[in-house]
Amino acid sequence: MRIGAIEAGGTKFICGIGNEQGEILERISFPTEEPEKTLEQAAQYFQDKSIEAIGIGSFGPINLDRSSPSYGQVTTTPKPGWAGFDFVGYMKRTFPVPIGFDTDVNAAVFGEAKWGAAKGVDSCVYYTIGTGVGVGVYTEDKLVHGLVHPEGGHVLIRRHPEDNFGGLCPYHGDCLEGMASGPAIEKRWGWKGNELSADHKAWKMEAYYLAQAISGVILLLSPKKVILGGGVMHQQQLFPLIRKEVAQNLNGYVASPAILDDMENYIVPPGLGDNAGLCGALALGIEAVEPK
Amino acid sequence: MRIGAIEAGGTKFICGIGNEQGEILERISFPTEEPEKTLEQAAQYFQDKSIEAIGIGSFGPINLDRSSPSYGQVTTTPKPGWAGFDFVGYMKRTFPVPIGFDTDVNAAVFGEAKWGAAKGVDSCVYYTIGTGVGVGVYTEDKLVHGLVHPEGGHVLIRRHPEDNFGGLCPYHGDCLEGMASGPAIEKRWGWKGNELSADHKAWKMEAYYLAQAISGVILLLSPKKVILGGGVMHQQQLFPLIRKEVAQNLNGYVASPAILDDMENYIVPPGLGDNAGLCGALALGIEAVEPK
Repeated sequence: MRIGAIEAGGTKFICGIGNEQGEILERISFPTEEPEKTLEQAAQYFQDKSIEAIGIGSFGPINLDRSSPSYGQVTTTPKPGWAGFDFVGYMKRTFPVPIGFDTDVNAAVFGEAKWGAAKGVDSCVYYTIGTGVGVGVYTEDKLVHGLVHPEGGHVLIRRHPEDNFGGLCPYHGDCLEGMASGPAIEKRWGWKGNELSADHKAWKMEAYYLAQAISGVILLLSPKKVILGGGVMHQQQLFPLIRKEVAQNLNGYVASPAILDDMENYIVPPGLGDNAGLCGALALGIEAVEPK
Repeated sequence: MRIGAIEAGGTKFICGIGNEQGEILERISFPTEEPEKTLEQAAQYFQDKSIEAIGIGSFGPINLDRSSPSYGQVTTTPKPGWAGFDFVGYMKRTFPVPIGFDTDVNAAVFGEAKWGAAKGVDSCVYYTIGTGVGVGVYTEDKLVHGLVHPEGGHVLIRRHPEDNFGGLCPYHGDCLEGMASGPAIEKRWGWKGNELSADHKAWKMEAYYLAQAISGVILLLSPKKVILGGGVMHQQQLFPLIRKEVAQNLNGYVASPAILDDMENYIVPPGLGDNAGLCGALALGIEAVEPK
């Protein structure tokens, strides 16, 4: 099979062609502009590529309720032209093939479960920590959708005792995203994350916040892998700091050898690296052809 | 079908006989003592009842990993005689029928999804707030197990600004269970919950803590119902207080009419009332005969 994959980010569109083995055969990327212009570029790319399906992992929020007349639309984004735009409808009119559609983080967690760090296990969570904080959840071999879709980047967390930063989230102020996103790091310290030294105290504080959310998800869902990606997690020094904080938070309570003895293989970077999003879109396209 | 159901609590065993419609036809209960004595009583009850399967919702922690030689055992409980006791093995030797086995809260959420407050929807969470705080999670029409099983009663929460209570959890001090369980209420205020007036400030504080955890689970999993049971939730005045706190925490962010406009039918008591546990065990027994 040749499957079209779209990683539709808020600033960048990546389109590619892949196969059932999770291999990306080719790709292009271009800026995300007004929807018609952007999707016409995508359509031109996919034309004459003999694709049998398309998988889309999209920025959001999006409507994933198949019983809704607005299924497949981007909903309340401030991005010009996209609010209410019928993403799936547009693609479907242009390419009458099966179309898989989900959030960007659900795509990423799905790709990681199929071919990446969580290959072979039936549950995992994927956090992306960058401009925002997003979470994709995979349990009992299924993507979790629920009423809307997971928005676990906005959970409330305890403030670090040395932190006076107010938080950046327009909805919740000092929720996880408000305190631990890339822009929050920059605003708190006056420097972008990649301008701070690896031993700057910013990272211990960042680990403190991320570890709280991760500890919560471990307690609530007992996932078999916790995968941390996104621009902020390019700071490799965060991983040991986060693992240590999580172990302290759980304090031996979750009696699993994976957590007690092998945290290095439990809280991990994406196995697909920065390909997680595009491979995830590919996986969504494959599932649109062959639902489980 | 006639199915045996066991709600195995830490202090009380309830055994019953039910059918596929979720009806409990008869029941008995007796104190939970040493395992052999207790299970012999259960066995005597089920003898000559022509049961085709048994479902067990058990206090824990328990081993639910079917690939483990210790599957079906109670693991690290301080309860005399139960640590390492092979609960499923004992029942299987006595009654060679299919046996369903899960945590008490997973049983309760399963029963509620099948016949109770979450009937007809494919996801819900069930909190029981009593001697401890437990959480059962049901997503995409499946019970969540993961690595061990959910222990979402132990998530970290923000301290109420007027609360100086240290918390009772031996593992985490002031986690949710440490701050919001029945014993925590009693220790903090010097009176049992049912001795406090309905307008005591204890309830606003209790709602503050429970709402934080519930807001977190709504953000992470977007469940279609949130069900709150257990002894503490017999205090009906908690429901409106919790709904209000959850709405404040989410601040309009999760754009679902169920949450924005119909919270009264979203955060609810168990549809099966105090039968949720036994009906859940019944549902586990049925599933042991007819897996989905």
